[in-house]
Amino acid sequence: MATDYNYEFFNVTFPVEWVAHVEINRPEKLNAFKEVMWLNISAIFKRLSHDPNVRAVILTGAGDRAFTAGLDVQAASGGLLSDSGPTDGARKANGLRRHILEFQDCITDIEKCEKPVIAILHSISFGLALDMSLACDIRLSTANTQFSVKEVDIGLAADIGTLSRLPRAVGNQSWVKDVALSARIFGSEEALRVGLVSGVYKDKSEAVAEGLKLASLIASKSPIAVLGTKEILNYSRDKSIVDGLQYTAIWNAAMLQTQDVKDAMLSGLQKRKPTFAKL
Amino acid sequence: MATDYNYEFFNVTFPVEWVAHVEINRPEKLNAFKEVMWLNISAIFKRLSHDPNVRAVILTGAGDRAFTAGLDVQAASGGLLSDSGPTDGARKANGLRRHILEFQDCITDIEKCEKPVIAILHSISFGLALDMSLACDIRLSTANTQFSVKEVDIGLAADIGTLSRLPRAVGNQSWVKDVALSARIFGSEEALRVGLVSGVYKDKSEAVAEGLKLASLIASKSPIAVLGTKEILNYSRDKSIVDGLQYTAIWNAAMLQTQDVKDAMLSGLQKRKPTFAKL
Amino acid sequence: MATDYNYEFFNVTFPVEWVAHVEINRPEKLNAFKEVMWLNISAIFKRLSHDPNVRAVILTGAGDRAFTAGLDVQAASGGLLSDSGPTDGARKANGLRRHILEFQDCITDIEKCEKPVIAILHSISFGLALDMSLACDIRLSTANTQFSVKEVDIGLAADIGTLSRLPRAVGNQSWVKDVALSARIFGSEEALRVGLVSGVYKDKSEAVAEGLKLASLIASKSPIAVLGTKEILNYSRDKSIVDGLQYTAIWNAAMLQTQDVKDAMLSGLQKRKPTFAKL
Amino acid sequence: MATDYNYEFFNVTFPVEWVAHVEINRPEKLNAFKEVMWLNISAIFKRLSHDPNVRAVILTGAGDRAFTAGLDVQAASGGLLSDSGPTDGARKANGLRRHILEFQDCITDIEKCEKPVIAILHSISFGLALDMSLACDIRLSTANTQFSVKEVDIGLAADIGTLSRLPRAVGNQSWVKDVALSARIFGSEEALRVGLVSGVYKDKSEAVAEGLKLASLIASKSPIAVLGTKEILNYSRDKSIVDGLQYTAIWNAAMLQTQDVKDAMLSGLQKRKPTFAKL
Amino acid sequence: MATDYNYEFFNVTFPVEWVAHVEINRPEKLNAFKEVMWLNISAIFKRLSHDPNVRAVILTGAGDRAFTAGLDVQAASGGLLSDSGPTDGARKANGLRRHILEFQDCITDIEKCEKPVIAILHSISFGLALDMSLACDIRLSTANTQFSVKEVDIGLAADIGTLSRLPRAVGNQSWVKDVALSARIFGSEEALRVGLVSGVYKDKSEAVAEGLKLASLIASKSPIAVLGTKEILNYSRDKSIVDGLQYTAIWNAAMLQTQDVKDAMLSGLQKRKPTFAKL
Amino acid sequence: MATDYNYEFFNVTFPVEWVAHVEINRPEKLNAFKEVMWLNISAIFKRLSHDPNVRAVILTGAGDRAFTAGLDVQAASGGLLSDSGPTDGARKANGLRRHILEFQDCITDIEKCEKPVIAILHSISFGLALDMSLACDIRLSTANTQFSVKEVDIGLAADIGTLSRLPRAVGNQSWVKDVALSARIFGSEEALRVGLVSGVYKDKSEAVAEGLKLASLIASKSPIAVLGTKEILNYSRDKSIVDGLQYTAIWNAAMLQTQDVKDAMLSGLQKRKPTFAKL
Repeated sequence: MATDYNYEFFNVTFPVEWVAHVEINRPEKLNAFKEVMWLNISAIFKRLSHDPNVRAVILTGAGDRAFTAGLDVQAASGGLLSDSGPTDGARKANGLRRHILEFQDCITDIEKCEKPVIAILHSISFGLALDMSLACDIRLSTANTQFSVKEVDIGLAADIGTLSRLPRAVGNQSWVKDVALSARIFGSEEALRVGLVSGVYKDKSEAVAEGLKLASLIASKSPIAVLGTKEILNYSRDKSIVDGLQYTAIWNAAMLQTQDVKDAMLSGLQKRKPTFAKL
Repeated sequence: MATDYNYEFFNVTFPVEWVAHVEINRPEKLNAFKEVMWLNISAIFKRLSHDPNVRAVILTGAGDRAFTAGLDVQAASGGLLSDSGPTDGARKANGLRRHILEFQDCITDIEKCEKPVIAILHSISFGLALDMSLACDIRLSTANTQFSVKEVDIGLAADIGTLSRLPRAVGNQSWVKDVALSARIFGSEEALRVGLVSGVYKDKSEAVAEGLKLASLIASKSPIAVLGTKEILNYSRDKSIVDGLQYTAIWNAAMLQTQDVKDAMLSGLQKRKPTFAKL
Repeated sequence: MATDYNYEFFNVTFPVEWVAHVEINRPEKLNAFKEVMWLNISAIFKRLSHDPNVRAVILTGAGDRAFTAGLDVQAASGGLLSDSGPTDGARKANGLRRHILEFQDCITDIEKCEKPVIAILHSISFGLALDMSLACDIRLSTANTQFSVKEVDIGLAADIGTLSRLPRAVGNQSWVKDVALSARIFGSEEALRVGLVSGVYKDKSEAVAEGLKLASLIASKSPIAVLGTKEILNYSRDKSIVDGLQYTAIWNAAMLQTQDVKDAMLSGLQKRKPTFAKL
Repeated sequence: MATDYNYEFFNVTFPVEWVAHVEINRPEKLNAFKEVMWLNISAIFKRLSHDPNVRAVILTGAGDRAFTAGLDVQAASGGLLSDSGPTDGARKANGLRRHILEFQDCITDIEKCEKPVIAILHSISFGLALDMSLACDIRLSTANTQFSVKEVDIGLAADIGTLSRLPRAVGNQSWVKDVALSARIFGSEEALRVGLVSGVYKDKSEAVAEGLKLASLIASKSPIAVLGTKEILNYSRDKSIVDGLQYTAIWNAAMLQTQDVKDAMLSGLQKRKPTFAKL
Repeated sequence: MATDYNYEFFNVTFPVEWVAHVEINRPEKLNAFKEVMWLNISAIFKRLSHDPNVRAVILTGAGDRAFTAGLDVQAASGGLLSDSGPTDGARKANGLRRHILEFQDCITDIEKCEKPVIAILHSISFGLALDMSLACDIRLSTANTQFSVKEVDIGLAADIGTLSRLPRAVGNQSWVKDVALSARIFGSEEALRVGLVSGVYKDKSEAVAEGLKLASLIASKSPIAVLGTKEILNYSRDKSIVDGLQYTAIWNAAMLQTQDVKDAMLSGLQKRKPTFAKL
Repeated sequence: MATDYNYEFFNVTFPVEWVAHVEINRPEKLNAFKEVMWLNISAIFKRLSHDPNVRAVILTGAGDRAFTAGLDVQAASGGLLSDSGPTDGARKANGLRRHILEFQDCITDIEKCEKPVIAILHSISFGLALDMSLACDIRLSTANTQFSVKEVDIGLAADIGTLSRLPRAVGNQSWVKDVALSARIFGSEEALRVGLVSGVYKDKSEAVAEGLKLASLIASKSPIAVLGTKEILNYSRDKSIVDGLQYTAIWNAAMLQTQDVKDAMLSGLQKRKPTFAKL
């Protein structure tokens, strides 16, 4: 089934049952992104979202040097940020707006994926590395990860999601402003302390192993329960408590009508591992 | 006055002036909840809310083994989660929805209580332990507390408030997804680090003593000031800053018209403890 | 140009290029605030917002004893909180409401300043110290800072912004309720742990030096990129992700049409420091 | 079953199958409300909400003189609005706040009733008549109805829901401000034109007959479809389109799993009236 | 260029300069929708959105008998609403949810189209006719249009947008509940009175002619001004005034940098028709 | 006291007790606005808001030819819309944004005025006429009023409030899009039908007389009740019902503590006109 996920700049493999591994694969350019790549990210995660054989996903970058160095600035300066196109300021603005909205939508498709996604940030993790991993559910990193909200260093405000999602992801708004305004590089210890990542491992291979272990653990649970937990958390994130509770009530009104509850309860009593139907 | 709070599965006592102690009292079942208990929780906190002799509340579980193990699964499988009732999927869904909404409302009555509530999570604190304590104002725990967002282990998404309130309570959304999707047990050190609890004590008796001390300290302040602080924080939680400020302005327009301000200021200058009228 | 910023209770200086230093200057009263001072704060930050020679701001208190002890209670009890004025409860309430709204607006002008503002909290930092610094972008402190959400100790709920902004600034709501309900004094270690400040330095002079260094670093970036980062973070704070992304898209549609992007990219490649036009 | 609905100031009858008729019954006082009456309203609509024999409700006032003249001012001036109780302004304010919130909640229970409620406004319909009928789903009136947002005439802003619900109910905000600020009496023609009512009949008996006909028509539809339509409209009212659509999707994911859809489709093809199971 | 818009169930033509005409083309089935058709609607409007030769769009149904009779119930009962697929209630619910979300997204693509869309509702306009036309900008109808929020008649709550968008489109919430709960058929006079349509014409050909005239008028304006007006109205619809104004400010900060403003002003003074560059 | 309101382009008079009349006074230019005028509008309404001698306000344009023709395009093309200023697109955008935000704020000061404001739209009422009158509480017009959302005709989207406030003011979103996208001129009959105005009079002098009569009626009510009604309606406008009710509860908790309630009730019983203290 891996053949269904055939993209030039991505490797999609299935290292353990129910778990997909998406690897950004442009290591010679530090996994920097050009346009085709975010279109591919969207296509891959849309497919994983409904793939009955997938219950959890991990996301990494190929090679040892970078998760991703972010936007491929060279490619961008010939495209999105070039002087070509309309000279009228408003028309140019509309072209840019279309482009940014499309780019944002592609990255948001990671968030919309029904299955939990674990990002493993290793080595250079600049700019888009944050935009993307903040659209994932869980973030892990390694001892040598170098994080940076790099965008101000190329003269712009981060526009693919970091400025909307980072302040919700961590509990230190002074720190958010500090790193977003200064573009300074910070490491995993700091990322862990502020809550950007929830686990740090000594190197990439250990982090991948632990990520897969966590993905497998999640994949061993009822896919109905996992789906509901992800979707309700995402829905409730920027709603009031009252709205979140109402959504939860109707969600579970639908989703409690499953054999999984009985199977999960029974196997809990019997201390054995339950088997759940595909989603 | 303790006789006013007479419930089979709860002890309500008044260990120090102005402070109520609500104890979940079903220790032989690890303080697991059946339906009558959440109805009682609602009744108790509605009464405490308006009780002029109460200015702060602590919430604990009876015995050493558990704050609460969560929903009494055995009782639930004969009730809410049983196969009885309508067979039509939609009618069954509506029955479930009514049930969940009522259950949520009961727990929200803790949040609506005008007086601050301090939860002391000790030993087993699974599932509903989080739903309930997240509706409290302050969370303390002990060295041996075992926390778990347990619901995915019984095949469902947590639906009594955890998925709405937990992400606002702590500053590490990656960690929230991690524990909510994996149902893994975690301890007080981790809970403290992410901000789920704001204090950890060596055992239950020390935690209760410290909880009572904090409750007493709060109870020594102007009840008008304490009420306003709780209510404005709750109102502002999921509003914009602009809306929060406007609500605050009219709140204090009403609540500054009190003798308490003068008494508090004067006793501050005179370095003595003020006495405030009942609320 | 410092002469443009001539106020009795504030010193405004320009210690390094592009950076303004606003100092609360009433050290003999622990920098406590009376009405003229919050009107001045508003005037100063409105001017800094559009001053082309300013790209970042630091805010401190004069002297070693206090950033600010908060509201000048003596002045307030002769004014806002006095018994003079209307005796009709509703008319008194309306007078208070007008007063609170005006006071809030003045402090919010710090938040609205287009340039990043770094608060350096040192020594006594009570009440208004929090309201003000929470309207700043970045908070630093010193080993001896004494913080307190002091308002309940004078019989009222904090009404100039703390109760709206503090819960968003840090990732520990249990702690927020703890300090806001108890008015207890806490130190920098605790402030750092919960995320209220993002850096602690050994004393005021080191903190000011580090604050200036950070301000200079930010001031060395494209002013367009810095402006956008601050404004989008502020706008997105209490909007949904979807709304934040849409706002970001149109913002950058306008703001990518700048020479700064090219200059920043080029100087990045050439490893030299770019120069940007004034804002 | 009417005996289950035995209240001094309300008649609850079941004039046609599936339809309840709630009549405010204090005609000698123009159906003016005192406290017990809004507590009763709450109790009645909570019960109707879950009563399997009820699928639609109409609400009227007894007698020919009034739907209701609003709050019983005499009763109120001895209670809520009296000088008794605390003299401290803040404590008095808190007592009033508790009272208003409880009163609002009782009226909101009409809105929360799972079954559609049709208000038939006839003759004098002042103050609370609007608060109540705006919590209903459909409003009808008669040629002689006299409407007034009467509250400013007794020195206060309407506080039981009119100021929140009226602007959403009609499409003429200039008119809303006009009638709410002037307290002027207006008639059914005007109410129809601005959309406050959706039908006007020549007198009370015709209006009741038409109201019952409409209630019967609604009661003849699938109760699952009717419930969903009411609940989704209420939920979506003050949410964004995006949020409303997401809620709708999960609602119907649960509620399409019903025999009613098949029965309704089939009877549609066969041009016969379907029979649906109770809710 | 019409060849770019080649779909079995839709005719896309360009009757006048800058104006596209989208015609639902399944007249033998009263233009009822099956799945391929909403996928096509999405594809068509996504393309129109960026087509530089299009500045306004009209939407009609082929033939004289119907704009659309709504969902093709026969097709649906073999698909979405069939008994096939998973028997587990939760898995069935998730399948339905995916389906509904995808269907909603397709219809929302009309709303997202950058160019104004005018729906011309004629003859039978049931169910989906409302979902679709409510995602358009302007609604016109004919003397013989038969409208119905038909969904309750097939046992379900309308789930493709009507219940979210209709209450915002018209100013008579009592009427919205009336028609949505009763599924009764209503005509153009009523639709005009409540504001569902803003123009009624004697028959389809006149309505199409008038729709084209209006589309041409809009197409004669600056495409930048038209785009901004549509997008700001849509964005502001369910935001606060404050948020709407901020979005508007940055929008126009980008979009005032256009030659169109000068051209429009000048041609206004010179009483001649301006020519604007393509978007 | 009229001398306090001395502005070159505005006449402020006090034609009847408690009522102010603000007249835009640049009739030779059809009352078109240049920058100083919106700054003055802000200053005037801020002062009226707190002026104890004012309880209601009417707003008109001097002369018979126009309420206002909108922005003075000639002045604007030499200022805001000129080619002077920065050539860098982003810096130009920021200048425009500052300008628009300041302009919006000035007009919003009409909305923030504590006293109800009645706009009387007569003759030419283009562009800014709508922005301004939509920030008023009540809109009246005359038989000859010519309305137009004129902005698209000068190549831009309306940015001073119309696109945010108009859709909330009227109940016909199709019509809103129609007039906003086409810039067509419409008259009072249409304005009345859609709810943009709530009264139409035969000419300006009659409209002013009726406006004054309505202002006087409102001014005869308790100023506390009037203030509360305006402020709660404005606050609730874009909040949820739940939030609006909570705000209302604390508002009235403060504002019921007034002599006005007793005076209003008593004079109601005694059928005499009450006298209320100044606000």
